Amino acid sequence: MRPSGRKLSELRPISIETGVMKHAEGSCLIKVGETHVLCSASLEDRPPPFLKNTGLGWVTAEYGMLPRATNTRNRREAASGKQQGRTIEIQRLIGRALRAGVDRVALGERQITIDCDVIQADGGTRCAAITGGWVALRLAVNKLMKAGVVTTDPLLDHVAAVSCGIYAGQPVVDLDYAEDSEAGTDGNFIMTGAGRLIEVQMSAEGATFSRDQMTELLDLAEAGVAELVAAQKAAL
Amino acid sequence: MRPSGRKLSELRPISIETGVMKHAEGSCLIKVGETHVLCSASLEDRPPPFLKNTGLGWVTAEYGMLPRATNTRNRREAASGKQQGRTIEIQRLIGRALRAGVDRVALGERQITIDCDVIQADGGTRCAAITGGWVALRLAVNKLMKAGVVTTDPLLDHVAAVSCGIYAGQPVVDLDYAEDSEAGTDGNFIMTGAGRLIEVQMSAEGATFSRDQMTELLDLAEAGVAELVAAQKAAL
Amino acid sequence: MRPSGRKLSELRPISIETGVMKHAEGSCLIKVGETHVLCSASLEDRPPPFLKNTGLGWVTAEYGMLPRATNTRNRREAASGKQQGRTIEIQRLIGRALRAGVDRVALGERQITIDCDVIQADGGTRCAAITGGWVALRLAVNKLMKAGVVTTDPLLDHVAAVSCGIYAGQPVVDLDYAEDSEAGTDGNFIMTGAGRLIEVQMSAEGATFSRDQMTELLDLAEAGVAELVAAQKAAL
Amino acid sequence: MRPSGRKLSELRPISIETGVMKHAEGSCLIKVGETHVLCSASLEDRPPPFLKNTGLGWVTAEYGMLPRATNTRNRREAASGKQQGRTIEIQRLIGRALRAGVDRVALGERQITIDCDVIQADGGTRCAAITGGWVALRLAVNKLMKAGVVTTDPLLDHVAAVSCGIYAGQPVVDLDYAEDSEAGTDGNFIMTGAGRLIEVQMSAEGATFSRDQMTELLDLAEAGVAELVAAQKAAL
Amino acid sequence: MRPSGRKLSELRPISIETGVMKHAEGSCLIKVGETHVLCSASLEDRPPPFLKNTGLGWVTAEYGMLPRATNTRNRREAASGKQQGRTIEIQRLIGRALRAGVDRVALGERQITIDCDVIQADGGTRCAAITGGWVALRLAVNKLMKAGVVTTDPLLDHVAAVSCGIYAGQPVVDLDYAEDSEAGTDGNFIMTGAGRLIEVQMSAEGATFSRDQMTELLDLAEAGVAELVAAQKAAL
Amino acid sequence: MRPSGRKLSELRPISIETGVMKHAEGSCLIKVGETHVLCSASLEDRPPPFLKNTGLGWVTAEYGMLPRATNTRNRREAASGKQQGRTIEIQRLIGRALRAGVDRVALGERQITIDCDVIQADGGTRCAAITGGWVALRLAVNKLMKAGVVTTDPLLDHVAAVSCGIYAGQPVVDLDYAEDSEAGTDGNFIMTGAGRLIEVQMSAEGATFSRDQMTELLDLAEAGVAELVAAQKAAL
Repeated sequence: MRPSGRKLSELRPISIETGVMKHAEGSCLIKVGETHVLCSASLEDRPPPFLKNTGLGWVTAEYGMLPRATNTRNRREAASGKQQGRTIEIQRLIGRALRAGVDRVALGERQITIDCDVIQADGGTRCAAITGGWVALRLAVNKLMKAGVVTTDPLLDHVAAVSCGIYAGQPVVDLDYAEDSEAGTDGNFIMTGAGRLIEVQMSAEGATFSRDQMTELLDLAEAGVAELVAAQKAAL
Repeated sequence: MRPSGRKLSELRPISIETGVMKHAEGSCLIKVGETHVLCSASLEDRPPPFLKNTGLGWVTAEYGMLPRATNTRNRREAASGKQQGRTIEIQRLIGRALRAGVDRVALGERQITIDCDVIQADGGTRCAAITGGWVALRLAVNKLMKAGVVTTDPLLDHVAAVSCGIYAGQPVVDLDYAEDSEAGTDGNFIMTGAGRLIEVQMSAEGATFSRDQMTELLDLAEAGVAELVAAQKAAL
Repeated sequence: MRPSGRKLSELRPISIETGVMKHAEGSCLIKVGETHVLCSASLEDRPPPFLKNTGLGWVTAEYGMLPRATNTRNRREAASGKQQGRTIEIQRLIGRALRAGVDRVALGERQITIDCDVIQADGGTRCAAITGGWVALRLAVNKLMKAGVVTTDPLLDHVAAVSCGIYAGQPVVDLDYAEDSEAGTDGNFIMTGAGRLIEVQMSAEGATFSRDQMTELLDLAEAGVAELVAAQKAAL
Repeated sequence: MRPSGRKLSELRPISIETGVMKHAEGSCLIKVGETHVLCSASLEDRPPPFLKNTGLGWVTAEYGMLPRATNTRNRREAASGKQQGRTIEIQRLIGRALRAGVDRVALGERQITIDCDVIQADGGTRCAAITGGWVALRLAVNKLMKAGVVTTDPLLDHVAAVSCGIYAGQPVVDLDYAEDSEAGTDGNFIMTGAGRLIEVQMSAEGATFSRDQMTELLDLAEAGVAELVAAQKAAL
Repeated sequence: MRPSGRKLSELRPISIETGVMKHAEGSCLIKVGETHVLCSASLEDRPPPFLKNTGLGWVTAEYGMLPRATNTRNRREAASGKQQGRTIEIQRLIGRALRAGVDRVALGERQITIDCDVIQADGGTRCAAITGGWVALRLAVNKLMKAGVVTTDPLLDHVAAVSCGIYAGQPVVDLDYAEDSEAGTDGNFIMTGAGRLIEVQMSAEGATFSRDQMTELLDLAEAGVAELVAAQKAAL
Repeated sequence: MRPSGRKLSELRPISIETGVMKHAEGSCLIKVGETHVLCSASLEDRPPPFLKNTGLGWVTAEYGMLPRATNTRNRREAASGKQQGRTIEIQRLIGRALRAGVDRVALGERQITIDCDVIQADGGTRCAAITGGWVALRLAVNKLMKAGVVTTDPLLDHVAAVSCGIYAGQPVVDLDYAEDSEAGTDGNFIMTGAGRLIEVQMSAEGATFSRDQMTELLDLAEAGVAELVAAQKAAL
């Protein structure tokens, strides 16, 4: 019944390859089905200006998409001179999600920037970016700890994200583009490895939804995120 | 226990004054406690370019804040040459929420732009903008129907929004600035007059949250939105 | 003979309500007929960079108009990414006018920014902004003096402005939109409470004018500004 | 008593050389003392979009200054990505002034753009731009009339401009930079060949002024503009 | 003597993998040593506006670099709101180079955009982009010919590019970053499969160069481009 | 055979007038046929931030073109809000070329900005800008040496530039607009007074070129630059 033939609760195949960008302090290429995102972590030894002399660190994120990651070419944001609203919304979400899993005192006055660049898109790019971005972050933090500059692990738990939605009246997990563009309701759940909620964003695109449906989506999300966390562990 | 002395489930006083901008097809000044938002609806007799010849209408929104709506002056976005990420995120949310309550076939090929300008801010500006924006939209649509250019009511139901969050470990509704800046988790619920969900955005700012807490917040939101819808009805 | 039925030398009804924005150091809502402008004064305890270590203060102004302040909706300047030439010209004028009434040595190394946001427009918005802006400035300066941080009053005199023009061949004062859009010549006179000139801007829009007409317009302006100064005094 | 030794009513030497830009429909290099402005007129055979099918023509102006036209280098506006408020204000003034002398029905549906680029600045650049810009306009219109595409002369009269101000307590005409930077009040008068007023802009920079002083400045301006018009005639 | 131990005339290992972006009409990942560039070709069935009704096609290129493609993170151009001069210069070069190998009449009124995004940088990114970009272009054109919409092959010959320079006084080919940052003179040679010159850009960065050195560099470039063309052939 | 009747190796008449901008530390108006460029050198007593405390100086350049320097009016870059790719490419070239002739240690921690503004264009503006820009630079450096603040001459040699190309199958030097717009190949050679190469940029616009043609173009360039250097010497 799903265009891909998947079961309602079935994720697409996940692959996470680490160490793909030689200059970055941490990096991975995450593939969730045909959605491919390159994630890198860049470390700076000073915090952003607004955190100077607070003892706190910062994790932020930027998101981009190659012009031909999608079916028809999108205009390059660097050329058009501004990031689209969608891009800004997504990168704010990624940064917020990752920070929710960080002990900023333990990190200390430094900044880690996670760049998530979509090489190929087939739905769910922001979730893949969060899941892969956390892996890049983990690798960069490992480097800091190995070097002894950070002694308490600043990462409190895994952070991963999955999309859910109501497609053809049924709750489904990990929507691909074919589903995403037709879903009446869809959104994203970001959770920790322990299954605590970090962010819930569920939005009616064509049809409002009930509290019961909300509950079904949360069930799907819990199971989905657990699989993604397992994939993160396997990759590291 | 709340800084304002309110009960956990108590909204701030709500006032909605209509017809405050003589040029607009619909307008209101909504006050939710010390948060004041001026909302206007502007009608154009043609749809945006991407809907030409589709028979569908469009509702969109823009959001702004006067530089001194807040405790310290913010730089005017028109002067800095770009809207902040926060502004873009909010106005996309308002537009999406209002469109979820619109029958775009019944509206026909025309566009209604809802401008929400915050005159004074004390937390919850985006929820006030949605609740007040719907009133402006309703008034503009009434005008269209009275003029006979639209015959089926394109508004399917009321749309209203309330913030909820976890403050000092307790679930609370309609956070003011003092609470908002300290809440571990907060977000917004947008619902219809019939209590269906349009958008759920819940985000851990300092502490992750459990599914039980999510349920408590949804309960608060349902009751809060019902009060807001009653206020919309009273104002019209 | 005037569209509004006013006499040639008759101003529109003036109302100035103070203290309308709780966060601002000074604020008022000025209504000149159907032209409504919200004015606020924001104080910063340091001067702009170019005045550092000079002992001099600064007063500056910014001007904006809500998109639906006018008969048809104007594009939001924050969204279009730049302020229009008209906006820039007006806010430079407001700042220059208010500074002409300030003893910048007495003010000391601090800056006051006057924000003038047009809620509803019906001609003469820049004059209303100057007249109302001065009231907001006066209130903010009162606060500084009450706190004892400024001891000599930095405001030398009232500053107020009125438009004049030649409409249907006759000199008229305080043009509303209907007159403004048809006037052959129009402009603004900014004067002190003592009747000294601060700025004269008279411009032929459709027909050049003679020195005799210039004299008649100056006569109208003197009487008009005197009334506005009286309204400022009444409001304070 | 003036830094240059000039009498109160004495203009700087004026030179207007025509035909200095081979591609332009009309051009001149105007020198008013050490202020040198290159003016060109560019003709387009269609009006700006807002005048399509109205039968009316348009004259507009743009103003620029070479980075090293002044004593210290100014940042190039093309490099900084926006025109300064001062630039925008000046070019709007030039366009408005020149249009006041044009019969837009006689011009017909075409546009003439006057570019005024300051090669060297020593005060009074906007007045030199108007006076020289009119010469470039006259030459371009002559070409149109010679070609027979315009049969009634669209230029109603000469347009020229002179600055006046109060320097060291005395009314003076045609201020150079040394005077301009010290004047308590200064501004510009734009007039026709017949001595009718087009625009009066007089502004207190450091000291307010009286109606009597305003009268003295108008007297100086009348005489000054007459000399400039004579120079325009001599150049053509 | 070269940091990498290569001989003066020795290129780095070249790998060209085709078909790496499923949505694009043509794509490849080119690796020249540690320099990795993702190239895609996007086809539009209409030419750019300036070629409408001319019968001619167009090939253009855009260039980007992921923020962490380099040793230290570069600011994302989309976020800074403009492309750097270096980026603009490079993408103009790529487009010009590829067009030199295209029969624009045979291509017909359509446009092909080549996006070259540097995933990892180690010197010579613009040459890799041209060499890989031509492969993507070839694949897209093959698709057009297979579909029968283009009947005469619009690609006149291979186009490939190699950098050359004077490093430690010796002429070398295909500089990596270590050499590039120290070279006294360096530049790029773009040539056809038949060895004809398309573009020569040689520039003294620290030391001027003689005609004899120019000749030596041309010799190195001829041999280098021949190898690159062989790699293109092998990949297709 | 050339549109101008010139011989293949014949430059256009050259004139270099110095001291044309009274505020600049060095300036000239260079005319190469109908191409006229105003060049000024502006000295700042501190280096750009990236050279602070290195002991090195900097020479940079900016390029502009008056809107009506060309046959049809170009949009003013300051008004459009960004410099075109062509402008950026040219000013980077001018700066690079001039720096190649500068001993930056001898110059010391100061910056000289060369502004090249094209008053009238007829092909070869970037070459004229380099040749004239060097004269302005020479004059500014002379001033520094005369003042004794620089004691070793930081200018190593003359720098001048000439365009060459293949027009109607023949190699020609110093292309005017009529040739430039038709040439199959064209480009620029920048050389020192001693005939050493600084930059070679040769580009196929319509037809690729051979090594033999490259050699012929280099011969023409050597002779052409020698003439330009002689003109620089005569002007100083």
